[in-house]
Parts: sequence; C-alpha cells; structure tokens
Amino acid sequence: MKPTRVCLLDGGSLAIDGYKVYWNRGPSGDIRFPVYSVLIDHEEGLFVYDTGYDLQHMQTYVSGDQPLQTLDQTLPGQFQKLGLVPEDVTHVIDSHLHIDHCGGNKHFPNALFMVHEKEYAQAVNPELFERMSYSDLVYDPELHGMNLERGSVKPVASGSAPVAVAPKYQFLSGDVEVAKGVKLLETLGHSAGHYSLLVELAGRRPMLFTGDAAMTPRNLEMMIIGGFHLDPAKGVRALERLKSLAAEYDAELFYSHSMPEFETWRKAPEWYE
Amino acid sequence: MKPTRVCLLDGGSLAIDGYKVYWNRGPSGDIRFPVYSVLIDHEEGLFVYDTGYDLQHMQTYVSGDQPLQTLDQTLPGQFQKLGLVPEDVTHVIDSHLHIDHCGGNKHFPNALFMVHEKEYAQAVNPELFERMSYSDLVYDPELHGMNLERGSVKPVASGSAPVAVAPKYQFLSGDVEVAKGVKLLETLGHSAGHYSLLVELAGRRPMLFTGDAAMTPRNLEMMIIGGFHLDPAKGVRALERLKSLAAEYDAELFYSHSMPEFETWRKAPEWYE
Repeated sequence: MKPTRVCLLDGGSLAIDGYKVYWNRGPSGDIRFPVYSVLIDHEEGLFVYDTGYDLQHMQTYVSGDQPLQTLDQTLPGQFQKLGLVPEDVTHVIDSHLHIDHCGGNKHFPNALFMVHEKEYAQAVNPELFERMSYSDLVYDPELHGMNLERGSVKPVASGSAPVAVAPKYQFLSGDVEVAKGVKLLETLGHSAGHYSLLVELAGRRPMLFTGDAAMTPRNLEMMIIGGFHLDPAKGVRALERLKSLAAEYDAELFYSHSMPEFETWRKAPEWYE
Repeated sequence: MKPTRVCLLDGGSLAIDGYKVYWNRGPSGDIRFPVYSVLIDHEEGLFVYDTGYDLQHMQTYVSGDQPLQTLDQTLPGQFQKLGLVPEDVTHVIDSHLHIDHCGGNKHFPNALFMVHEKEYAQAVNPELFERMSYSDLVYDPELHGMNLERGSVKPVASGSAPVAVAPKYQFLSGDVEVAKGVKLLETLGHSAGHYSLLVELAGRRPMLFTGDAAMTPRNLEMMIIGGFHLDPAKGVRALERLKSLAAEYDAELFYSHSMPEFETWRKAPEWYE
C-alpha cells in the first residue's frame, strides 16, 4: 500500500472586512487571506478537498472581495506544477458550496463529488443572505438551474474552463471516513452542511483542515465565529469540536483563510507525507 | 372607556459599529442611536414596553457601546416629566431581555413582567456570544443567579436604583393581545423570544414598534438583519413579517434604534392618542 501524501494548492487570495472574519468583533479594515485546495494522493484514489474560486465569476458577480489570482494559481496551473492533470482526480470533496470553496469544481470531469446532503439542499434553496455565497454552482448545471429558479443571482457567463456535465454525487451526513485515514468531520453552522477534514499521514502529525468553521487561529482562540454563517449556535459548537478533535488526534490545525500561517506551509510542488 | 394613549420615553443613546447594525454590510464606523421605552396608558392598565439600559451597568461591564444618558433620560426622570411614578406601572413587556431593553426593569416593583417563554429560557442559558447581551438581569435575582451559574459575566454591583424582589411573570408564546388593541407579535431571530408591539389608537394610524427585529429603516428596506442575532434565517422571516404587518394594519413603523426618525417623533411629556 502506497503511503498517503498531501499537497496544498495555492488558489490566490481575497480580501474582506475584519467584521466578516470576526463576527461582531472586527476590527474593521480589509484582511487579505489565502484560498487553497488540498490534494490527497491516496491508495484509494486522488482526492481534492475544496476547489477555490473562479476569478471570472468573482470579478463579474461578487463586488468587493478583491480577488488576486495568477494563472499559476488556477487549478490547472497548480496541477501542472505537480506533473498531474485534473482529469486524474477521482473524488472532489467540498467542505461546503460557497463560491470560494467550489469555484474550481468544473475542472474535474471524472470525479465523484462528495458533499453534505444538507449543503446541497441549502444551495438549491438558500437564505436571502446566502445567495451570493451560493452563486457559483456552474459545475452542476442542474443545481445551478434550481438555484436560479429560487431567485439567486444571475448565471455566470460561460467561463474559460469547461463546465462539467451532470456530475456524479455522493451525498453525505455525519462523520465519514472516505478513505483509510481520511476523515470528514461535521462542523456545521458556517453553512448548512459543512465538513472539516482530517488526514492521517505516516511521517507526521495528522493534518486537520478546519474549512470555514475556523478561518483563522484567532477565531478558535477567542471562540469568535465568522461573520458569514447560517446558525451561529452551531458555529460555536463547531469551534468547540475543532478544539476537541485537535486534542484527540494530536492534529495540526490548518485554517482555511489565514495568510500568516499559509505563508509558512509547504505548498505545491512540495508534499506532506 | 378611556382612550388609549402612548408616550415615548427617551432613555439616552448608545453608539456601535455599522457592522453590528447591518450584518456583513456595514459600512464600519460608529452609529449613535436612541434607546427608548413605550408607555401605554390604557383602560386595562399602565404598560411599559422595553425599559432601556442602566447607565452604571453599561459603564461598568459593557465596553465600547459609549452610553450617553442624562438624569432626565432615566425612567424616574421621564416619569417625573409626566407627573407619574414607576410604581403605577401594572405591566412591563420586554421585547427581549438584552441589556438595552430590560435595564430599567428594576424600577417597576408592582408590575407583572410579560416576556416570551423562550426568551427567559435563553437568558438563563445563553450562547457564548449572547452572554454580554444578557448580563443585566438584576431586576430578577433568581434569573440573574441562574445566568451567573451558567458562566455569564460578573454580577453588576448594587446599582443606585432598588432591585425588584421576585418579580411576577407571565410567560408568553405566539402572538398575544395583552389588552384591547395592544398586540405582541412574534418576530424571532434577533433573540430566542422576541416581540414587536402594535398599538391601535383612536386618533391616528396604529403604531408598530419593531423592537430589534428592525433597528432602522435601512434594515427593513434592504432586508439586512442586525449583526447581533441568534438565528439569522428567522431574522429574515421577522423582517418579512414586519413588512406584512405594516401593510395589513396600515401601521406606522417605529424602529428601535434610529436617530433620524427618533428625533422627529413626539416624546414625553407629549402623548400620541
């Protein structure tokens, strides 16, 4: 059995106000943060957790998030650095379906898409304040269409990348071990169906990817959830769970959107193993 | 039967960041807003809806809300302008139990306290992010004590005003007509059990007091809930309900915390009738 290895794929950055990162705390002012994907090369398949944002979608439909993404920071660009192609990916796991976590789904035509069943349902029928967050579902024309029928934002123009046709799904709920040592852990609240990810490796401490349950270390240290959320009470439970999981597994925490930490991490073409 | 009349009691002001008034929208920067009580002189009793904040509590325990309150803006000061005393009040209705809506409850030793049953339960066992909001429950030593046991903020020192002993409660749920033409209307989301108030008068359009379901006109016009909330999805339903109620009753909307509107309203010692 070949050893599991993990690679972080730089997807560029966004900047939002401090009050959106730290609910009711701020301080105000732009915070620029990274967006990245996690590639897991595993005996049982080639997995991607989160797929970043689509630059054209952000520039066209999402005002104010100030995207910065070079060609090198697109998924095709990152795969090229590794000598791989997106077509090799067998499974795409979306922590959730917000624009900066599923915007690259369309690059994976052969993948099985794994998503929390409640997340998919919410993306079809989002709250008013979630519509922009769920505006980039073009990887799945049916899902995108249902979302539009409910009154979400206008469809994105056909992008530069191919749009997947009728992606295959596996809908999940509860904690799920999707491959040996690759565990999806429910951390709800930020969105209806949100998963953090734990990956166990032979040569280092387990890696615990928080997803947006904790964007930065301060979120966890101060028990402040992010400004964007569907259920703040569940969001606090998720912070508590992350603390508990980190202790239980002696895991290293990888926050979803914190530049100081991201700058110190190993990134493509390097691997964690 | 004597005609109902309504008087707005100025309770001073607070200032908080724009992101707290307009969730994830801002813009940032201090917004100073009024805090007021609604006195309803009715055939069936003398009612008060909301009792503002206690200056000493705010100055001692709540950092950053910048309270401004003259002696004239305390409840005893406002009652004096009307030639009334707080002891005459028969019913205190709390839209909810946040510090700036129940801080004057202790001034009403003879009142029956009407509060949503879910609000009382939440005040006993608040979420982490609600603890400061529910920190001024000294009017009810038992409630305050239960709250403290659950780990809320430190007790306020004995204030300058007398503390009510064992207040009598009527716990409510659903819409309730507490007196003829005085209706409590459920508008949940900002807090667990939140009531807006409709008062029908002989000589003018009904007055619809939104409470914190809509702090300002912009909240309603733009369908933006406030930054402080327990359940944002219910908060949006409450905004929709306020719009619908205003149309149904042809009511004039009185927002809880909007200075431009407050400045144009009639206030004690003047009455609406």
